[in-house]
Amino acid sequence: MTPPKDRSRTDKRERILAAAVKVFAERGFYNAKVSQVAAEAGVADGTIYLYFKNKDDLLISAFEDRMSWINSRLTNELETRQPPVDRLRRFFAMHLLLAVHSRDLAEFITVELRQSARFIKEYKNPKFAEYLNILRGLIVEGQQQGAFRRDVDARIVTRALFGMLDEVMLTLVLSRKTPTEEQVAFYVDQLEKVVLQGLLLNPDAS
Amino acid sequence: MTPPKDRSRTDKRERILAAAVKVFAERGFYNAKVSQVAAEAGVADGTIYLYFKNKDDLLISAFEDRMSWINSRLTNELETRQPPVDRLRRFFAMHLLLAVHSRDLAEFITVELRQSARFIKEYKNPKFAEYLNILRGLIVEGQQQGAFRRDVDARIVTRALFGMLDEVMLTLVLSRKTPTEEQVAFYVDQLEKVVLQGLLLNPDAS
Repeated sequence: MTPPKDRSRTDKRERILAAAVKVFAERGFYNAKVSQVAAEAGVADGTIYLYFKNKDDLLISAFEDRMSWINSRLTNELETRQPPVDRLRRFFAMHLLLAVHSRDLAEFITVELRQSARFIKEYKNPKFAEYLNILRGLIVEGQQQGAFRRDVDARIVTRALFGMLDEVMLTLVLSRKTPTEEQVAFYVDQLEKVVLQGLLLNPDAS
Repeated sequence: MTPPKDRSRTDKRERILAAAVKVFAERGFYNAKVSQVAAEAGVADGTIYLYFKNKDDLLISAFEDRMSWINSRLTNELETRQPPVDRLRRFFAMHLLLAVHSRDLAEFITVELRQSARFIKEYKNPKFAEYLNILRGLIVEGQQQGAFRRDVDARIVTRALFGMLDEVMLTLVLSRKTPTEEQVAFYVDQLEKVVLQGLLLNPDAS
């Protein structure tokens, strides 16, 4: 359902989506009620249904909207002449910094994404696919330029790296205190050491 | 709730737990009904409540029971005189082979674990902690023996590796066909190349 394009309606839709992210993150999708989203957004319950069919539609719309925002930030920030390895580092940092700057959103994505992908079987999750494509593009480019090893499948590497980032972000999100940028920088450094340089001290001997 | 220890009751409890894994994996925890678990186990609905307080208790018990089984298999198989790097490879393989040999269980763990850890705030998930400890022990031992780099925190590496395995297992579990052992071996090889040897072709230059 696309709402009319005039400004106040767009703002209201945006407010409802932001409220949905917050309420779903706090209460979990299944426990959250549409009326709680309405209260958080400062609109009447019925107003939600002018924009969204039901709670599932609200979840998917909120997810797609936020992923679009994340994807466009990634695309903008990474579209430089930097070498792929630096862009990959930046990708790691941008992913994990969500836990610092948009904790509700980070929690929404780490906790609700998997569940939602599961229960709505027909939902293909195009924005998440786009996100993975950005990451995969970096790997492929690095392979083509001779920076990254070519004896690995970029698709598998992409899933592995996403899983790693997602799990580390989950631990950041579930920790009592909001992490600082310095803490995130430390995590990024750790992950780089593992996946760029490798755990083995003497790879040739293995 | 601990059921009486006589054999037939133990068997019945075990049958209910196996049914719970299957039904939760197929329908998702929130959609699954206790009566469906009872039907799958071939017991009366009320029987479930002789062993488990409610659906949450059933989920936690099924999870703990299966993780105990996984942990003891890991401990047994990895308790050899092999070098840490070989044991880490074996750990990767055993994790991902769940998707081949126990697909319901693999789906239950990848999809329900995160959700359940979230909605039951007071549940500390001791069996999952034990699982992570086994993995962390391998990393620490490898660091002590000079096989793995020491400038990374074993706890962070553990979470990163678990996230990677978990995400890759999710893609295996959600694929239409049950993967073969050969496919899993290929994935293990790919992951090893990334996290043991590292993505960078020329780490010194970075």
